Amino acid sequence: MKLALIGVGLIGGSAAIAWRRAGVVSEVVGFDRDRAALQRAQALGVIDRAAPSAGEAVRAADLVLLAVPVGAMRSTFAAIAATVPAHALITDVGSTKRSVIDAARAELNAASSSSFRRFVPGHPIAGRERPGVDHAHGALFEGKLFVSTPVGETNADALASVEALWTAAGAKVSRMDADEHDRVFAAVSHLPHLLAFALVARIASEPDGERKLGFAGAGFRDFTRIAASNPEMWRDISVANRAALSDELRGYRALLDELQRAVDAGDAEAIERVFDLASRTRRRHAETFDAE
Amino acid sequence: MKLALIGVGLIGGSAAIAWRRAGVVSEVVGFDRDRAALQRAQALGVIDRAAPSAGEAVRAADLVLLAVPVGAMRSTFAAIAATVPAHALITDVGSTKRSVIDAARAELNAASSSSFRRFVPGHPIAGRERPGVDHAHGALFEGKLFVSTPVGETNADALASVEALWTAAGAKVSRMDADEHDRVFAAVSHLPHLLAFALVARIASEPDGERKLGFAGAGFRDFTRIAASNPEMWRDISVANRAALSDELRGYRALLDELQRAVDAGDAEAIERVFDLASRTRRRHAETFDAE
Repeated sequence: MKLALIGVGLIGGSAAIAWRRAGVVSEVVGFDRDRAALQRAQALGVIDRAAPSAGEAVRAADLVLLAVPVGAMRSTFAAIAATVPAHALITDVGSTKRSVIDAARAELNAASSSSFRRFVPGHPIAGRERPGVDHAHGALFEGKLFVSTPVGETNADALASVEALWTAAGAKVSRMDADEHDRVFAAVSHLPHLLAFALVARIASEPDGERKLGFAGAGFRDFTRIAASNPEMWRDISVANRAALSDELRGYRALLDELQRAVDAGDAEAIERVFDLASRTRRRHAETFDAE
Repeated sequence: MKLALIGVGLIGGSAAIAWRRAGVVSEVVGFDRDRAALQRAQALGVIDRAAPSAGEAVRAADLVLLAVPVGAMRSTFAAIAATVPAHALITDVGSTKRSVIDAARAELNAASSSSFRRFVPGHPIAGRERPGVDHAHGALFEGKLFVSTPVGETNADALASVEALWTAAGAKVSRMDADEHDRVFAAVSHLPHLLAFALVARIASEPDGERKLGFAGAGFRDFTRIAASNPEMWRDISVANRAALSDELRGYRALLDELQRAVDAGDAEAIERVFDLASRTRRRHAETFDAE
């Protein structure tokens, strides 16, 4: 298959490498708005050829992978809608799914309803801490989860083909409703990112913030590791998934309101109830998480 | 020196091993309310002899280390006040300092004002994720920070002696006002623990919580690692340091209020301002933290 890779970052680059290695992709044409990243991807051999636009990149593709920030999905669907071949599989790696599906429906359907039916919304759950094609590697998805979130219109063969591609990349495939996906990842990924960003930003904005950070230990280091993530990417995710993230944040704030009352009142029992439930749960799941 | 070790957990046990190895401690008498832990400490050779009470343990001591939860400090000071020798150095490892100092002042002064002058409040900043004397080792404090928080009454020679002990254990010594200590660690340790406990507890209390946790990735794992900590210990810390923790939590909740408004309004700029400040700060400090 000929792959058109739109967005040559860590995730897209790693998928191209993994699929080429698995023998399911024979040629890769790439496009990225970042010209330097595009050249770098070609120099590294991740892509065979750089296209001058997303529309040109997909012209002869059997498979199109959109690996751009979720905030750039809609314009990317618009850019490929007129030139993507009718037989081509289209899939994405966006961390939010409802917004990407809505964008695909609006832009692909406008050109040809068959293209939207061959679009398979997807989300490989893989680390993103060291971004860029320079860190791309073919084993990134091995043992990791890939979540597909098909909609009613999604073609069954297209869905099976895309899931087989991720299986070939070493991922474990899971299928989920898009809205459930967005709620689940708001809870276990998007909210934790927002909370970690908020903690570091708050300390950094205080006059003695630098002094405080000098006393941070291993717990703080782990808790805030995700606060080093790309701010634009997570801004986009927060906006794209704002309905689910808003609900999660509201519920979390309600619990913090309770804890504030408990701390102010020195209510050791109320504090312990929350801490104890968390500790038991986190210990029980320690092996699940460490296997990821 | 003869060491009386009150509390034979990870921190106390590691200090005893490190000081014995450094040649500054020749004999260790231990006491712990947990009889099994006390026997285990003796079987491991961490202590030479188990005392029947804290008061008996300190009777012939040159150095007393209180390595009990902060919630047990006051009763421990009370238990040793009548029997601790006048020449003995007394120090502790509590994560909060104002409450421990108040407890020491109340209980030691009641017996003899010289004992309180020879009490040096301290806090070694070392990992506590794998608790218990079985995980104690002599290198736990190497390269880590030890913070002393002397008060006006603290005897200068006692302070110098205790700081030298921690230097001998490999720690870097820093001196700080107790109230500043409590504010700093509320920000970089106590609040992050409360936030991580709250996140896991909230998910665990939802009907689909187990399903959500099944999709958690490496970011969630790191963010919530401290939520596996001992709930009683962190309950005690939260109550003991409630003044400073309350201020930090209040400030953090105000920032979350702002972020809730920004998420609900889809205000990408406001979200990015917070995320960007955090990301730049966290990246700049990455090496500091990783060295800990």
